[in-house]
Amino acid sequence: MNMEKGGFTLPGESGYEKLTLEMAEKWGADVIRDSDGTVLSDEITNSGYGIYSTICIIRDHNAWAKENMDKLQQTFLCTPAAIAAEDAITISLMESFFDEQFKINDTEAAFKYWEVYDRTTNTKIESDKWTYNKEEGTVTVKGITPFHKYTVSFLAYRIWEEISMYNHTTNNWQKEHLLQIDPRYPETQEYMLSWMKNWCETHPATTVVRFTSMFYNFVWIWGSDLRNRHLFSDWGSYDYSVSDLALDEFEKQYGYRMTAEDFINKGDLHVTHMPGNQKKADWMAFINDFVISFGKKLIDMVHEYGKKAYVFYDDSWVGVEPWNGRFQEFGFDGLIKCVFSGYEARLCAGVDVPTHELRLHPYLFPVGLGGAPTFSEGGNPTLDAKKYWNSVRRALLREKIDRIGLGGYLSLTLPFPDFNDYIAKVADEFRLIRSFHDAGKPYTIKTKVAVLHSWGKLRSWTLSGHFHETYMHDLIHVNEALSGLPIDVKFISFEDVKNGALSDVDVVINAGYAGSAWSGGDAWKDDEMVTALTKWVYEGGTFLGVNEPSAVAGYDNYFRMAHVLGIDEDTGAKVCHGKWSFEAEDTENILPQGATVAAKDKRFLTDGKAAVLMADEENRPQVTMNKFGKGLGIYLSSFEVDLENTRMLYQLIRYAGGEGLTGLYMTDNLYTECAYYPESKKLVVINNSDVEQTTTVKTESGDVTVTIDAYDTVIKNL
Amino acid sequence: MNMEKGGFTLPGESGYEKLTLEMAEKWGADVIRDSDGTVLSDEITNSGYGIYSTICIIRDHNAWAKENMDKLQQTFLCTPAAIAAEDAITISLMESFFDEQFKINDTEAAFKYWEVYDRTTNTKIESDKWTYNKEEGTVTVKGITPFHKYTVSFLAYRIWEEISMYNHTTNNWQKEHLLQIDPRYPETQEYMLSWMKNWCETHPATTVVRFTSMFYNFVWIWGSDLRNRHLFSDWGSYDYSVSDLALDEFEKQYGYRMTAEDFINKGDLHVTHMPGNQKKADWMAFINDFVISFGKKLIDMVHEYGKKAYVFYDDSWVGVEPWNGRFQEFGFDGLIKCVFSGYEARLCAGVDVPTHELRLHPYLFPVGLGGAPTFSEGGNPTLDAKKYWNSVRRALLREKIDRIGLGGYLSLTLPFPDFNDYIAKVADEFRLIRSFHDAGKPYTIKTKVAVLHSWGKLRSWTLSGHFHETYMHDLIHVNEALSGLPIDVKFISFEDVKNGALSDVDVVINAGYAGSAWSGGDAWKDDEMVTALTKWVYEGGTFLGVNEPSAVAGYDNYFRMAHVLGIDEDTGAKVCHGKWSFEAEDTENILPQGATVAAKDKRFLTDGKAAVLMADEENRPQVTMNKFGKGLGIYLSSFEVDLENTRMLYQLIRYAGGEGLTGLYMTDNLYTECAYYPESKKLVVINNSDVEQTTTVKTESGDVTVTIDAYDTVIKNL
Repeated sequence: MNMEKGGFTLPGESGYEKLTLEMAEKWGADVIRDSDGTVLSDEITNSGYGIYSTICIIRDHNAWAKENMDKLQQTFLCTPAAIAAEDAITISLMESFFDEQFKINDTEAAFKYWEVYDRTTNTKIESDKWTYNKEEGTVTVKGITPFHKYTVSFLAYRIWEEISMYNHTTNNWQKEHLLQIDPRYPETQEYMLSWMKNWCETHPATTVVRFTSMFYNFVWIWGSDLRNRHLFSDWGSYDYSVSDLALDEFEKQYGYRMTAEDFINKGDLHVTHMPGNQKKADWMAFINDFVISFGKKLIDMVHEYGKKAYVFYDDSWVGVEPWNGRFQEFGFDGLIKCVFSGYEARLCAGVDVPTHELRLHPYLFPVGLGGAPTFSEGGNPTLDAKKYWNSVRRALLREKIDRIGLGGYLSLTLPFPDFNDYIAKVADEFRLIRSFHDAGKPYTIKTKVAVLHSWGKLRSWTLSGHFHETYMHDLIHVNEALSGLPIDVKFISFEDVKNGALSDVDVVINAGYAGSAWSGGDAWKDDEMVTALTKWVYEGGTFLGVNEPSAVAGYDNYFRMAHVLGIDEDTGAKVCHGKWSFEAEDTENILPQGATVAAKDKRFLTDGKAAVLMADEENRPQVTMNKFGKGLGIYLSSFEVDLENTRMLYQLIRYAGGEGLTGLYMTDNLYTECAYYPESKKLVVINNSDVEQTTTVKTESGDVTVTIDAYDTVIKNL
Repeated sequence: MNMEKGGFTLPGESGYEKLTLEMAEKWGADVIRDSDGTVLSDEITNSGYGIYSTICIIRDHNAWAKENMDKLQQTFLCTPAAIAAEDAITISLMESFFDEQFKINDTEAAFKYWEVYDRTTNTKIESDKWTYNKEEGTVTVKGITPFHKYTVSFLAYRIWEEISMYNHTTNNWQKEHLLQIDPRYPETQEYMLSWMKNWCETHPATTVVRFTSMFYNFVWIWGSDLRNRHLFSDWGSYDYSVSDLALDEFEKQYGYRMTAEDFINKGDLHVTHMPGNQKKADWMAFINDFVISFGKKLIDMVHEYGKKAYVFYDDSWVGVEPWNGRFQEFGFDGLIKCVFSGYEARLCAGVDVPTHELRLHPYLFPVGLGGAPTFSEGGNPTLDAKKYWNSVRRALLREKIDRIGLGGYLSLTLPFPDFNDYIAKVADEFRLIRSFHDAGKPYTIKTKVAVLHSWGKLRSWTLSGHFHETYMHDLIHVNEALSGLPIDVKFISFEDVKNGALSDVDVVINAGYAGSAWSGGDAWKDDEMVTALTKWVYEGGTFLGVNEPSAVAGYDNYFRMAHVLGIDEDTGAKVCHGKWSFEAEDTENILPQGATVAAKDKRFLTDGKAAVLMADEENRPQVTMNKFGKGLGIYLSSFEVDLENTRMLYQLIRYAGGEGLTGLYMTDNLYTECAYYPESKKLVVINNSDVEQTTTVKTESGDVTVTIDAYDTVIKNL
């Protein structure tokens, strides 16, 4: 094939200049990057390639930070609830927290935000009832009710940048602990701008500055006990953006004060997986405002020096929010996402920014995630690369990505020439697919899907973090399946439903456990929304619910869409009610061979009319389908992504949209998928399995049959 | 052994006078009874035995009932929620109900209680928006919100007495359907009293009138579709005591009106397994008042004729409430309970009434429950009898029962002489045990147990109905295990906790799923109660929680006693929180070999301090123990009664009470149990298993070792 080079970012390595340039040629790289802790030599930077340089603006400033320990980033912490055996109790603030990560902030400005709570009654204890002992790091509460339990919420500085801390403790680093400085303070801003200016001036060869990422890390609270080191971890939470100054400024701007409890939330904190509230929304907007306004100053400066500014969507991404409609205000030239999964590719691809770049796995490190060898003895980096490419490739077929690249130490690839060959193939394949996208959008079926949850567009494709961190949520499995299907997908909120978002949608998916942000929780108490959705289904739409869709207590049904689904869950109140008997039968063969669904307890048919397509050996319904007006309610008791279940979801969506179970540009072998690009008349067929597959695709020019190696790709001209 | 005869009620049979008298002699009967549908001959009634006669005061009056169809018993029914596709909807009232059981009551007096509800908003539709079409049996609602769903709640007469209906449909009876008349009406009362008087006068031989039972059946709503025939069934619910007249009288007495919705409760009705509310409590008291006041008139009349009055605790028991402290107001001389399980024997034994009698299984019928042969070809009634006796015997060891007996057709025993021999043995064994009770109470351990739930003493031992109807509730398993253990047990409510009920208790058991009456639901929002219980544990008590004890949403923990248990359940809000690692180890061998506990998802250690005694292969904690002050929190993720788990519960209770895992009057073989009667110095050792067992019991006079046949009993003098 005749194809362009470019669109590839290669990690250069000093001391391996020859290898760097050789691989740049082999992989068709147009850009060479440094990596965390590496510096490119002049030979590389002057070789005519574009040069990426990574900066992390909030760390690596320990000299300045040590002079400005009052400008470190902070968080609220809350002590574990302690029982008072008498009418007084003394609580140690730091006992359960990792003292290398946190330091109490007892400055006057911060102290006013401290709170003591009676957690039995969940009421605040007036401040005249408690005293702080600075020496001991304790709070003593007096005149309280014996045998109630009490907590202290306080502000703490974070004295070890979390990623540095993780690398230290995981890899036994002995380097100095990095501090993280908070740009909320004018002095920090001044320092950062001056540092950035100096950086730009001293890095003339850099063409792209890669920000890793902006200012505020995802929340990662470590504990003092190794039996429970990670007390809390949420990629989508805003707790680490807090400080006494931010709180003061918030009050001025919003006219009300955010309290410690607004963050602590009884000790639960506000996890992404649960619905938020207005205060949280206000705080997120407040932080987003700030991250944009100060971030833009840094980006503008980069631009002034004739460089581009990309942002890496990773650890310190909080407040960046690429999907909230304001991302272009930053003025970024590119967004880079490190990807394990297809949904992460879509998360990147769908953002309104000139350049979308993926950082592929495996990283060029001796060991991978979980400690298994990669580029070291016993490793098989080529197979790893195939599997990772297999995960993300199907998403790349659906939406355009502009660039790919690697990270790490190039020299580690030396003993693995296979790997280098495979990456060359991947790079070519990527560029080819990109060229098809450039010619025109790929074929999609007519049926349009909307995923409905509390966050809507803001949390398109992702839940919070990586797949392995969120695997317990049905929706990440659904998103991953959808990421590579030839279907237009959008993510909508419950408010959107009331504002006409369903007008161009055929199937609405709601997937999650009761009370979660993904199911929706109290959002389902909105009668107007329920009514709009009901009407939409009645007139021909399909509501596809997974696990505990639309579940909320207080109504005649636990699933508020039970009238559409024909199935509900008994929370106990229906234990004395008779249950409809049924026989499971998939009369139309809608479910592919090998599809599996984990059954859940206490699901029952509401009026006996829903067809049960799949049930387990205890006759618990797993897949049901219910006609409702001209529309349909489809229920899956759970969803776990794999090739069979991805096909099941696709067939259910096709069926719901009236497009039949099979059709144009669909493989007849579920271990394969395909994409068709009408403008370029190219058919891309991929084998998602680890063995050779033969598959036939129905096209407008007749059937096309191909045989494909494990994990491989075949491209046909039609 | 030299023992008295008596305490045995034998079912006589006309035409088998010789057999009747022979068996009466063999089994030591002192009373001969008729059975449903049988009449005793003069030869029997004049044979010098006491004579029981069964009457069911509310049925078998079809002649009168047909003249008084407006005095039949009633119920509220609610149509299934129907979606309005436009601004009007017509709803058929009877479509989903069994039309042989119900007939719409559209009299003016009843119609005023009808209600139409918008179930989307759960608001009542004003009556000017709907009209009733008597011809069609429909209600049409107009001017409503399209795509909301609507129900009609209406009063209906019950036109087929439920037990008669069940027997008809199950056994294909072709007899006339029996009607049930409501004593709420003065005319019915007059009729019943006159009927009763006549009955007494025409039954001079009868010494005991057995009421089966009083007036109101447990709720059993049948549907029109055979795929879901039993729409609702609850032995403890009061819906069948309703009528327009009762509602009118309630309003006069209580000063407020009960509405249809107060019964219908969104379609859930008020199941016994869920916590009640004040209105339900008022209605129960109102009905109980009436059942006592009119019941007493019937009983007084029976007494006037020199006969005794016993009540059979069965189908029409609603409003009798033997455990609410008012039972003696009826003036009953005896309470009879048909028993499958040990807890039912305790349910009878603990009631304040002169005579406690058990009706044993198997009944002398050709087939048993579930249709398996009993007294017919293929049946083994002796083995059945052994198994049933095995279930109830352990409870009889703990508390005195005065009489036992059988029911059915005596002639059916003719081909089964073994059976007759076995019953003779059981009768002797029963009388012997009774004689030990007469001499003095059996030995119990010092540790006292209270079972804590929403109903408290009112629902001592039982939940609602039989074991096979309530097996899905942990508590019935706990109750069944406790029923035969040498432990003083009482049942307390959450109000009781605040009123000093814990002063003589060592272990409190709370067992059930979240929101249920058995776990407690919103009762756990009572801070005062939680505090009292916490203090009690801190000072030395043990809180033993099963499944979702003390669970209620809205607090820092889902289990409100999590601070005592050291374990909690994640409802989703803690999905981002780290979980304490642990290794399960039963260092003190508290759990017996073979004990099993079904693991539940999402349970986690709160502070890592609880000891995990048992966990499953996924390391989900199944049994945990947590020190709290001088007390203990014990958690079982579930409880299923069997011999091993019964021993586990016993050992946990002993351990909690500081009495060690073994001790006096405890067998060393968990397939056996024993009871010791200090006054009579008798040790009764029972084999609960189906194979021979050898066991040793530590006594104050040294170890006693016995070998016991399957299901058999050994009695030793110490």
